[in-house]
Amino acid sequence: MTAQANSPRMITLTSDFGLRDPYVGIMKSRIVLRAPQLPIIDLTHGIAAFDAEAAGYWLYCCRGQFPPGTVHVAVVDPGVGSERSILVLEADGQLFVAPDNGLLGLIVQSCAGCRAYRVSEQALARLHIGAPSATFHGRDIMAPLGAELASARIEPSQVGPPHSPAPGRLQCGTRQLDGSLSGSVAVIDHFGNALTTIPAAALGALGRPEVLLDGRRLRLVRTYGEALAGECVALINSSSMLELAAGQASAARILNVQPGRPVHVLDGQHAAN
Amino acid sequence: MTAQANSPRMITLTSDFGLRDPYVGIMKSRIVLRAPQLPIIDLTHGIAAFDAEAAGYWLYCCRGQFPPGTVHVAVVDPGVGSERSILVLEADGQLFVAPDNGLLGLIVQSCAGCRAYRVSEQALARLHIGAPSATFHGRDIMAPLGAELASARIEPSQVGPPHSPAPGRLQCGTRQLDGSLSGSVAVIDHFGNALTTIPAAALGALGRPEVLLDGRRLRLVRTYGEALAGECVALINSSSMLELAAGQASAARILNVQPGRPVHVLDGQHAAN
Amino acid sequence: MTAQANSPRMITLTSDFGLRDPYVGIMKSRIVLRAPQLPIIDLTHGIAAFDAEAAGYWLYCCRGQFPPGTVHVAVVDPGVGSERSILVLEADGQLFVAPDNGLLGLIVQSCAGCRAYRVSEQALARLHIGAPSATFHGRDIMAPLGAELASARIEPSQVGPPHSPAPGRLQCGTRQLDGSLSGSVAVIDHFGNALTTIPAAALGALGRPEVLLDGRRLRLVRTYGEALAGECVALINSSSMLELAAGQASAARILNVQPGRPVHVLDGQHAAN
Repeated sequence: MTAQANSPRMITLTSDFGLRDPYVGIMKSRIVLRAPQLPIIDLTHGIAAFDAEAAGYWLYCCRGQFPPGTVHVAVVDPGVGSERSILVLEADGQLFVAPDNGLLGLIVQSCAGCRAYRVSEQALARLHIGAPSATFHGRDIMAPLGAELASARIEPSQVGPPHSPAPGRLQCGTRQLDGSLSGSVAVIDHFGNALTTIPAAALGALGRPEVLLDGRRLRLVRTYGEALAGECVALINSSSMLELAAGQASAARILNVQPGRPVHVLDGQHAAN
Repeated sequence: MTAQANSPRMITLTSDFGLRDPYVGIMKSRIVLRAPQLPIIDLTHGIAAFDAEAAGYWLYCCRGQFPPGTVHVAVVDPGVGSERSILVLEADGQLFVAPDNGLLGLIVQSCAGCRAYRVSEQALARLHIGAPSATFHGRDIMAPLGAELASARIEPSQVGPPHSPAPGRLQCGTRQLDGSLSGSVAVIDHFGNALTTIPAAALGALGRPEVLLDGRRLRLVRTYGEALAGECVALINSSSMLELAAGQASAARILNVQPGRPVHVLDGQHAAN
Repeated sequence: MTAQANSPRMITLTSDFGLRDPYVGIMKSRIVLRAPQLPIIDLTHGIAAFDAEAAGYWLYCCRGQFPPGTVHVAVVDPGVGSERSILVLEADGQLFVAPDNGLLGLIVQSCAGCRAYRVSEQALARLHIGAPSATFHGRDIMAPLGAELASARIEPSQVGPPHSPAPGRLQCGTRQLDGSLSGSVAVIDHFGNALTTIPAAALGALGRPEVLLDGRRLRLVRTYGEALAGECVALINSSSMLELAAGQASAARILNVQPGRPVHVLDGQHAAN
């Protein structure tokens, strides 16, 4: 991991803890204790309870926005206290600390040169990270380990043996034999936008992309402002992913869309030829 | 802009992004990259989607609480990607960065010597703020520009030509010909308090103010504690604005009040004369 | 108060302000003004409106997670502007700033050597904390006072005369004459876990603890993962308190539990003898 010399390190937090209870604050106290000056950025704590893949999707979307050296700690961990491992993943100079439950699947899928390591008891002991509770490894292990990694007091390869992360259910949008792209809605955001697994890059390969949801064609626009009030459209969002949106309204409600819903992109040009 | 030498700079964020998605965190990462030690304060991200004027009202109420040199970045931006401008407003030594959609109307209305500038492509290019997405100017322009302004690496007058901000719908409470004050409910807060556009200063000019909502008189008290359980009262709140509240209950629910509802203050003394 | 030399100070905030309005941000600005580099940690702002004891319960649970020298500012203050006092409590090297309305009762109950002081006008004047509004002492008094205490510019004993804090309704789980423990549900968290007032230490004194809710026995497990899907269980949580939980589900919903509900722990061994 080589961080740009002029980039300040930062650590991000992602969880399904919500903001109603003190769990996030307690995790932060463990980071402050080990790295008092490290900027801590809440990515989201609004992941639906136990939905590790939604957390992974957001990290997959957001990681391009952060500089090399950033450490992302993601705690959606229904298996806490069981035999599941905790991983450190190195991808494009950024680090991800998360349980091995599919959360990191999408990032591993999309990042050819990434490397993952399974956190060992020995490494934790060396860092004086220990005596963990059986129920809150975000506080006891992942937050302090993230702080140590962000402080460069330990290298990813030193946390434990190489490990192949569990794949998740989510798949990046993929090209089909007929030339179309197929993907799905991954998350619904606060505005009711439906974010899909289809990256702009894949869409760019089509001559004249036509976005279909259940056979219904959605106009492809450039900005939210181009949608008429209440009109449902598709656009490439700020994370360079295909997104379904509506003019000053909730596309998810209008289209009655939930995560998991298939989305297709045909090549109009190809179809016309 | 002359900040007090002994006041630390800070930057505040206001948006309709909510806290369920990573959008706020991504904006913060852009600030950290340019101003790692700058304190970032979330004012609110709970503005109703697209309600630029509610954001402006809160800024209008809160600005008195912040020291000169503070930079407020406010992103309620349904017109993102369209022709709407981005503004920098200088008012009483504080700076406001926001889209030109009425958000800043109330502050402009109430601050005689304020000056606004329209952000130019050239200024952004000089600051290496560029390649913006079509859908997230909070991240691509407003957050980094706010960080540059807070770091005093650019002066407001250097961001672009002077510009007259779009007025909004909201009006500060105003004196009527009959001596009464008229205003409206601007926002409902988390406790169900109804905050109005009537400033304490205007109220102070009346001999014996009587607060009326739909002809119903509300007792004017000094503290929340003076209201009986469930009683609806009026008081001057901590932002020096007239507010409708209830004794350990939601005034908005009891009074069935929404933003926009007219509120009147008669001068009992005047009426009695 | 003697803080560990190598522990960075930090300040935590707890309130019933929610995160929809700017109140929390405004409190933070007052801390930044007096202690720009002090890490500020949001413990929770999701306390139900006016529920001072829920705030106190969370502080009671969380305080073991923070280092000596930490200052906790807790603002659940329906009596603001009335005669109620503001207190500074010193307990195990940590400080608590809160209104005297029962919020600190549970901590006082469980900490033998703690000392409390009533904040005096004179001390505030000396710190240039003044001209308070009648409605927002969190901003005007408690936040700036917390910043001064965390900066060690004033000692707890200097804020005013010793004072005996108001006790609250909540009671730590207590041993009954028949050898059983009795306590109650104190708060329900975001996951639907029901956190009780029964500490692990008390439970540890029983030979074979059997957790009963309305006569229904709940299996005592070590981790959330050991509960079958939808099964309601009891466990010692990460704050070392007895908690009712469910396998990837909301125990509070399944058991229809609200705060205040009695929880008993029998000693199966004792009963069998």
